[in-house]
Amino acid sequence: MQFTHEQSITLRSILRWRRDVRHFRPDPVDEATLDGLRATMECAPSVGNARPWRVIRVEDLALRAEVRANFLRCNTAAAQLYIDDKHAEYLALKLAGLEQAPVQLAVFTEVNPEAGHGLGRQTLPETLRQSTAMAIHTLWLAARAENLGLGMVSILDPHGIEALLAVPQGWEFAAYLCIGHPEFTDDTPLLHRTGWQANAETEWQLR
Amino acid sequence: MQFTHEQSITLRSILRWRRDVRHFRPDPVDEATLDGLRATMECAPSVGNARPWRVIRVEDLALRAEVRANFLRCNTAAAQLYIDDKHAEYLALKLAGLEQAPVQLAVFTEVNPEAGHGLGRQTLPETLRQSTAMAIHTLWLAARAENLGLGMVSILDPHGIEALLAVPQGWEFAAYLCIGHPEFTDDTPLLHRTGWQANAETEWQLR
Repeated sequence: MQFTHEQSITLRSILRWRRDVRHFRPDPVDEATLDGLRATMECAPSVGNARPWRVIRVEDLALRAEVRANFLRCNTAAAQLYIDDKHAEYLALKLAGLEQAPVQLAVFTEVNPEAGHGLGRQTLPETLRQSTAMAIHTLWLAARAENLGLGMVSILDPHGIEALLAVPQGWEFAAYLCIGHPEFTDDTPLLHRTGWQANAETEWQLR
Repeated sequence: MQFTHEQSITLRSILRWRRDVRHFRPDPVDEATLDGLRATMECAPSVGNARPWRVIRVEDLALRAEVRANFLRCNTAAAQLYIDDKHAEYLALKLAGLEQAPVQLAVFTEVNPEAGHGLGRQTLPETLRQSTAMAIHTLWLAARAENLGLGMVSILDPHGIEALLAVPQGWEFAAYLCIGHPEFTDDTPLLHRTGWQANAETEWQLR
């Protein structure tokens, strides 16, 4: 299989227009589209082909309210780290779309899966968590290409979410994902636009 | 920006034909293409827009020999975990393309970067490592779309690599990447083909 220059440009465009979305329209996501995203997520790389990501779709309204409460507690605590202008700036940021997002997924890593037979992770157990991160990124890009937005929420107490969803032993919280139709599209991170943290290129060193 | 159905199919195809490549042709990678990959990697998501990935391109032949020796030590140790048929099966696997790959990158995470001002990572410091994993995945997909192969080598002693490359305090080893023209293309993981670990879909749970 050979890809064309035009296809490579398409990929770059999808990567460039992917954003962490926190502003969602409330209308639902088509179930067939969502199932397509689930299937595409399976293409993610994983150490030893272990596929350690675990996904719980959260529909129950009481559970969703608990997740929002968890976020609010953690976000209030995080705001205390900043003083003066940065404190005000932090409080003005919208850091999650938990109220509106029609689809919400809690993602975990199974940290000692049988699959893969331990291959590739003896010296770096972290590789399992890297696999889950890449699976989330796969879902993120697939959603963007379907003109859906995804927001990754990390301002949560991980053990609180594990307890709330009563996950099996060995599942470690990775992220809570909001998915839906975005209110707007953008090719620049909101944290750059708001002045919180400007984009800056990473130079490669040479040895 | 709205993507078309055809563009979404292109993304799925790139995702499906991305492989962990361990078989490289020795011919060099065009420098302009490589610089394009570097620029595309900058599109990766990062917590707080902190961009914590650090990349060292390893060209020095003595350093490359040390990386290979590190891999051989770790791989020999890993092989001892398996007995009987699985031991023989493990020894038959080719798990890295360190001898042939013309481009080699050591990737690290800066675990306490100033950038981002701590946003989004107070309860989950892991988010910085997730950002690096997603940046590696971004590079992986961009390479695939340019018909280049990338192999992610994790069977390495991380502290040995950190010491070998004398990285600054606070840089944590994430992965060693081999990049080059692949000997063949494939839409199925080699670990599935060889029978080490079959593909298996991950069902989503519902709450």
